[in-house]
Amino acid sequence: MKIIQQPSKKDWKNFTERPQLDQSALEKVVQSIFDVVQEKGDQALLDYAKQFDQTSLNNLVVSEQEITFATKVVTAELKEAIAIAKSNIELFHKAQMMTSPKIETTKGIYCWQKNSGIEKVGLYIPGGSAPLFSTILMLGIPAQLAGCQEIILCTPPNPSGTVNPVILYTADLLGIKKIFKVGGAQAIAAMAFGTQSIPNVYKIFGPGNQYVTKAKEMIQQSGIAIDMPAGPSEVLVIADESSNPSFVAADLLSQAEHGADSQVILLSNNAITLQNTISALKKQLEQLPRKAIAIKAIQNSLAITFNTLEECIAFSNQYAPEHLIIASDEADQLAPSIINAGSVFLGHYSCESAGDYASGTNHTLPTNGYARSYSGVTVSSFQKTITFQKLTALGLQNLGPSIEKMALAEELFAHKNAVSIRLKSLL
Amino acid sequence: MKIIQQPSKKDWKNFTERPQLDQSALEKVVQSIFDVVQEKGDQALLDYAKQFDQTSLNNLVVSEQEITFATKVVTAELKEAIAIAKSNIELFHKAQMMTSPKIETTKGIYCWQKNSGIEKVGLYIPGGSAPLFSTILMLGIPAQLAGCQEIILCTPPNPSGTVNPVILYTADLLGIKKIFKVGGAQAIAAMAFGTQSIPNVYKIFGPGNQYVTKAKEMIQQSGIAIDMPAGPSEVLVIADESSNPSFVAADLLSQAEHGADSQVILLSNNAITLQNTISALKKQLEQLPRKAIAIKAIQNSLAITFNTLEECIAFSNQYAPEHLIIASDEADQLAPSIINAGSVFLGHYSCESAGDYASGTNHTLPTNGYARSYSGVTVSSFQKTITFQKLTALGLQNLGPSIEKMALAEELFAHKNAVSIRLKSLL
Repeated sequence: MKIIQQPSKKDWKNFTERPQLDQSALEKVVQSIFDVVQEKGDQALLDYAKQFDQTSLNNLVVSEQEITFATKVVTAELKEAIAIAKSNIELFHKAQMMTSPKIETTKGIYCWQKNSGIEKVGLYIPGGSAPLFSTILMLGIPAQLAGCQEIILCTPPNPSGTVNPVILYTADLLGIKKIFKVGGAQAIAAMAFGTQSIPNVYKIFGPGNQYVTKAKEMIQQSGIAIDMPAGPSEVLVIADESSNPSFVAADLLSQAEHGADSQVILLSNNAITLQNTISALKKQLEQLPRKAIAIKAIQNSLAITFNTLEECIAFSNQYAPEHLIIASDEADQLAPSIINAGSVFLGHYSCESAGDYASGTNHTLPTNGYARSYSGVTVSSFQKTITFQKLTALGLQNLGPSIEKMALAEELFAHKNAVSIRLKSLL
Repeated sequence: MKIIQQPSKKDWKNFTERPQLDQSALEKVVQSIFDVVQEKGDQALLDYAKQFDQTSLNNLVVSEQEITFATKVVTAELKEAIAIAKSNIELFHKAQMMTSPKIETTKGIYCWQKNSGIEKVGLYIPGGSAPLFSTILMLGIPAQLAGCQEIILCTPPNPSGTVNPVILYTADLLGIKKIFKVGGAQAIAAMAFGTQSIPNVYKIFGPGNQYVTKAKEMIQQSGIAIDMPAGPSEVLVIADESSNPSFVAADLLSQAEHGADSQVILLSNNAITLQNTISALKKQLEQLPRKAIAIKAIQNSLAITFNTLEECIAFSNQYAPEHLIIASDEADQLAPSIINAGSVFLGHYSCESAGDYASGTNHTLPTNGYARSYSGVTVSSFQKTITFQKLTALGLQNLGPSIEKMALAEELFAHKNAVSIRLKSLL
């Protein structure tokens, strides 16, 4: 962990910049996968499963039997935890579903909005050693609430050609019926272009490795929407003399264990708090099964002292962290000053894990400084807003002359005429 | 206008597809502009003004004097029309500003959202023969309501090195102080990377020609957000025996005059209405100053008969038009069935021009079928949503065991430990 003391404001930029990766090689690989999937469809996906997932599949579709089996093997204890998380996530996301009122902007002119679920959406759930079923909750619940008609899910098969039962159980719990054994950039291509087995969708959600991330970025050029651009996961913790160094260390490590490229930042107005936290972190690190990964992430991490908590917040706003923990008695007072962050955790008991799993907030959040302009996933990520308007004859009479003048000033005579022809008919 | 009668459902796809343009040449041109602007900054912009706008500028910044002059030359009549439009647009957009309530998802766990204005945004306003000041209203008003701290505007200079006074007047009216004489892909590059005169921004809005559109699409790979992908403007009108053919023809032409590539679609359940509308259109076309442009657009247009209005709506949902006009007595009854559209105009007096200028709704809308997954511009286009949470000790005691189980099932032990270490401290 690099320790920096009271950096001058002009140097902040250096510390807020994320490592840049050269992705030019990725682009070629992903483009060739796109081409092959478009040309060969399902066969391409079966070939890639052999090449990348070391498995020979007969069928890309997860069967009813596999889901029934999954439901049997997931423990009652884990099912209960998932049910509690689901309930909290539903509560919080339902509260987001608001429609603005119908407005009479001028006598006889009524304008309103309708939120409509995106008809066809695709969720990508990464594979790897651990089954990231929590991401299914975070994407599937808002998709269902939004009213998406078709929700499909792609996830890579493991070498035995199966998918982890907790993944299948969670998807089934949310009513997601179309689950496909496809991973990587080829899954993104399949959901964008469609294959014999996999329907094309209009928007693709979910995390993934650098190939998946690049594929999502590139697929936008084919008119497919994505949840947001992505980069390595990150946390910024602001600690002061009221903080518990062991708690803060545990939060930093819960980010560091995600991957060697995870970004972990500790800010404090107190050099002793900072030192105590780093000591606690070193101790806890020894206990971690994913120690090797966490050590690499910690090596790239920063611990910075500032004069005041207000300076810590200002730096955080410039950094725009995915997760921001304010581990201070003053968290509530500082909260209104936060303008750039994905998800904020206030006080000593609001650990990031709570939001990662079960408190109710979404864990699909903008990384890499994208919190300056992007939001995390909400119900509206799965909807589009349509505006409606109705003018009565009186409404057009009231507003028509203004429209005519503006259209004329823009030299759009047919625009003016669409009003004039109606006004004349009302004389 | 191509007339198609009762096409079978399997042929609908052919008629909903937009013309595909080969943009591979564009990409190289735009990339080279990006490179030059990044290397040479302001000097590149001055050079491009000479090359593309045929003007030698001394300064990229619009001066106070130019704005004062603009305020003098815009007529009182036009100022009044703009004031009325501004008031309606403000009313409608203010009504969109809602914050979801704070939710106690579990006893002791509080979750809420805050909408925060994107700090730095850039608006692009195209040049050309007519001054598109209405777009300044449509972007500037929600940007101000959203609480964006820095709003900059780029627009190409005309050959005399000036900007149309109505553009300057409207920008000044909205309190937009930083106006720059830069057009094309170079304006997008300047707002993305920043130059000596032009500050970089986090999100770029506004329409433009194919170079601007491509530049916005490409700039996303540098982490800059954009309002939405773009294509030629389009309208779909559904007419029946209750429609006034002259009104419908005027609406079709108000779209057609935008550009030769504009998409204009007429649907009807009545062959006579369709024929009468086409006759009225031919007559009105003769009167238009922009006749040459409109003729080209009409040549690529479709008029399709269906058996029922319900089929017309189903086709429209598949087409996902930017603008949808339901010129029918039954408009209100049909409205709930609309699931893909940018902005919808109901009844005989709700012409598209109303929404283009002054009724209150936004005119920056998804084209090219993007209405399947994208919304038009709203206040939230200029904001990002930050989630907050606070767990009390009791809250963590209530939910902690569930979080521990889920983290363990995902094999993320440090995530579990962040909870366990806190729970232990509470024993």
